[in-house]
Amino acid sequence: MKRIAVVLSGCGVFDGSEIHESVLTMLAIERNGAEYQCFAPDVEQLHVVNHLSGEVVEGEVRNCLVEAARIARGQIRPLSELHVGEFDALVVPGGFGAAKNLCDFALAGTECQLSEAMMVAATGFAQAGKPAGYLCISPVMLPRIYGDGVEGTIGTDHQTAAAFNAMGGQHHPCAVEAIHVDRRHKVVTTPAYMLADSLSQAAEGIDALVVKLLALCE
Amino acid sequence: MKRIAVVLSGCGVFDGSEIHESVLTMLAIERNGAEYQCFAPDVEQLHVVNHLSGEVVEGEVRNCLVEAARIARGQIRPLSELHVGEFDALVVPGGFGAAKNLCDFALAGTECQLSEAMMVAATGFAQAGKPAGYLCISPVMLPRIYGDGVEGTIGTDHQTAAAFNAMGGQHHPCAVEAIHVDRRHKVVTTPAYMLADSLSQAAEGIDALVVKLLALCE
Repeated sequence: MKRIAVVLSGCGVFDGSEIHESVLTMLAIERNGAEYQCFAPDVEQLHVVNHLSGEVVEGEVRNCLVEAARIARGQIRPLSELHVGEFDALVVPGGFGAAKNLCDFALAGTECQLSEAMMVAATGFAQAGKPAGYLCISPVMLPRIYGDGVEGTIGTDHQTAAAFNAMGGQHHPCAVEAIHVDRRHKVVTTPAYMLADSLSQAAEGIDALVVKLLALCE
Repeated sequence: MKRIAVVLSGCGVFDGSEIHESVLTMLAIERNGAEYQCFAPDVEQLHVVNHLSGEVVEGEVRNCLVEAARIARGQIRPLSELHVGEFDALVVPGGFGAAKNLCDFALAGTECQLSEAMMVAATGFAQAGKPAGYLCISPVMLPRIYGDGVEGTIGTDHQTAAAFNAMGGQHHPCAVEAIHVDRRHKVVTTPAYMLADSLSQAAEGIDALVVKLLALCE
């Protein structure tokens, strides 16, 4: 049975992992006959956002790993314990947490850097030639991981696409139910909630991403 | 298009709504051609539980509505604003939040009472003859809503089943992928994570519950 590492970054679209994308990813992995293990960095979140008002809650501190454990029903491990040899592929759901807690794209834009634990994990899969799937906003990390020329999509948002290209990536516009595949790097991307208006729209692209990711494990 | 009210109670299995059950419920509603609106009570959660350690976090306060907004991507309304006339059916996902924040079953057992907002909403659907679905632990509320003789399942847990019966319910054991239907009261129940070992197991019963619920709307 194929084993997939799922990297989360909190619990909630505005300060952590997008919950729907995370659950849909895990469901697709199971339904396609593979299994998953969740990971998240054991660090403070950049922000705590009130998801009702959309406002940052000043002074409140939450930990990415502890909050991501909500999505994983407690079955989660620190990102620093992700050993590439134990897994066939990597998936990173979106949500602002990917751009706030796994890297600093939300603050630094095209100057963004990945956190050390994320860089070690992601480059580990890249160097081992193992496939990886990045959803929603998380593909902004790809140029730092794979270098110039890596292909990916964040949907159709011109500003984010331009940033992706400025960092050295080759952005490909993509519909919400579709995926983009960089065959050379074994990287699969899908827009998910960069474009989705609903859970079932996001699910179409995520299902396709997981199917492709598992096929690339062969 | 059928409109379904989904009542959440926080965000996370140990102190709020079970996230997988909530997302799977919303996905099933969409995929079966209906639409949903999320609600949650605008009250403090009974507990904040660290989902990594399982321990209650002493002194930390979170609000059910604000946390449930994470599952709903901000698209959620206070439970007190749920008007039965605007919806065709009600669904209540599980998680300890259902037994801690919508009623006090987690503390009071067979002496449990529903919160005022939950009692108003739930009895509103009952009195209007509109169908309702209760997942996982949330069926413990049924005897207080529908009175003696209401049928439901919480799976196969003997202690919870005995409590359900002691409150006046008629418990029916049920497999994880199945549902129990009380035709007289138009109430559908499924064990979900009272029994499920995985997302895809929970999804089977939840999909079946939603299909039946929508059929009962006719």
